[in-house]
Amino acid sequence: MGLLGAIEAGGTKFVCGIGTKDGKVEERVSFPTTTPAETMAQVESFFAGKEVDAIGVGSFGPIDPIKGSSTYGYITTTPKPHWSQYDIIGYMKSKFDVPIGFDTDVNGAALGEHLWGAGQGLNSCMYITVGTGIGAGAVVNGHMLHGLSHPEMGHILVRRHPEDTYEGTCPYHADCLEGLAAGPAINRRWGLQGSELGVDHPAWAMEAYYLAQALMNYILILSPQRIIMGGGVMKQQQIFPLIHHELRNLLNGYIQHSAIHNDIEQYIVSPQLGDNAGLCGSLALARLALEEA
Amino acid sequence: MGLLGAIEAGGTKFVCGIGTKDGKVEERVSFPTTTPAETMAQVESFFAGKEVDAIGVGSFGPIDPIKGSSTYGYITTTPKPHWSQYDIIGYMKSKFDVPIGFDTDVNGAALGEHLWGAGQGLNSCMYITVGTGIGAGAVVNGHMLHGLSHPEMGHILVRRHPEDTYEGTCPYHADCLEGLAAGPAINRRWGLQGSELGVDHPAWAMEAYYLAQALMNYILILSPQRIIMGGGVMKQQQIFPLIHHELRNLLNGYIQHSAIHNDIEQYIVSPQLGDNAGLCGSLALARLALEEA
Repeated sequence: MGLLGAIEAGGTKFVCGIGTKDGKVEERVSFPTTTPAETMAQVESFFAGKEVDAIGVGSFGPIDPIKGSSTYGYITTTPKPHWSQYDIIGYMKSKFDVPIGFDTDVNGAALGEHLWGAGQGLNSCMYITVGTGIGAGAVVNGHMLHGLSHPEMGHILVRRHPEDTYEGTCPYHADCLEGLAAGPAINRRWGLQGSELGVDHPAWAMEAYYLAQALMNYILILSPQRIIMGGGVMKQQQIFPLIHHELRNLLNGYIQHSAIHNDIEQYIVSPQLGDNAGLCGSLALARLALEEA
Repeated sequence: MGLLGAIEAGGTKFVCGIGTKDGKVEERVSFPTTTPAETMAQVESFFAGKEVDAIGVGSFGPIDPIKGSSTYGYITTTPKPHWSQYDIIGYMKSKFDVPIGFDTDVNGAALGEHLWGAGQGLNSCMYITVGTGIGAGAVVNGHMLHGLSHPEMGHILVRRHPEDTYEGTCPYHADCLEGLAAGPAINRRWGLQGSELGVDHPAWAMEAYYLAQALMNYILILSPQRIIMGGGVMKQQQIFPLIHHELRNLLNGYIQHSAIHNDIEQYIVSPQLGDNAGLCGSLALARLALEEA
């Protein structure tokens, strides 16, 4: 069985890897994200001489993942220096003569978990990462969710906690979900890194207050069959029961489904692919590109 | 070409009709929703002797539209007397020997607009009704959106307007979107029917404030290619420009797409099927049932 290539293109670091068509990562390297010229040269040298049938790129955003669009394959309006309007897929196609898959890192991760992880056997699932930012992707009827563009679920509006005076970090919306609940907001609000706060610190109840509001809206709008939550902040496992409790309070019996009433611990879960969720997501994008080629 | 049957099963009234496979309504009747026995007898007598190839039922909810579920075809936990846990599709199948389609009225309307109305030629669209309640359905990749169950987008959380002291009408969530922005909330907040308020009344700016928040979240989560807004409240056409303005303020340039920057009047629109949106939706459900039979 041939191998696949995977690139997890993050704003802080790139991870490149080789894996199998059933999602096993066989090799991985990572390096910091600097300029496109420098970073993509490292990508090229990682894949040089390696036989792969397709390469998947799961990228930080915003991107244009809509095939047929004039800017398909671009990283678009990112504030990250040098990367705005960068045609990453154009570059990949100029260097590698194999099918190239492309989507957001989180749509890729949702697809990877759907194929090989916590979303196996379901028609729909969503993957949320809570870290430096908040992003989410979704699989609906077995396909990644697109429309006008890709989802940007991290920026939805939430209600401010009555005791929260922190203004929020989002340069566009100040106190949207990402502005109030991503890692940097936790650090600045409390003056400590998340890892320095004890597991009983009130920071986590406030975090759950915001994340549960987001999940309520995701459930009411998308109705996913499972919600997978990863990223650095979600390594604080004590948040999960707090979220389950807040979410049930907010829904207040409105959604009559056993997944929420009886099995919420199996409904809102950690990634089964663990720290490989992102890279496996890019492998999944490679597999999809190969199937569609 | 054979004809199709359509039932718009509303909580206040039922509309039954006959139409063509390209969405032309040829005959319609309506009658008040009373008990299931009485109402369904009227349905049966409307269709008696009429030749149809399939019948679509677009229903008030919540319902169970998930095929294979033990309660597929039921109206489930409605507070409407006599209709809770009513097996409407079981009844239809016992009386009519043709394929029977079933979904929420708003998923049906989204499909109808997708096939024959304001969503034609797109991969995705959503239909929102703002009336006695607020509900929405969506078409994604040409299919109606389902997952754990059907969407219940009317109950998402919104931020309270700083000048709004009205507590909200929703029995589950008090001041969710439906609780603050459906017709009954407008009536009780201002002490007048919507139709009695002048077009310059501050009620409409407040209404737009809430609806724009909802649209922001729908766009960030689902990324629909067009948003179609119907229902009694949306007959107040002066709300549309207020929503466009509020929505652009809220998004604050975050979604860089010409649909929002340049063409928002063509992005957020009225139903093209007008007052037949619901009945055409049920025709669309009939057509789908026939295709899948």
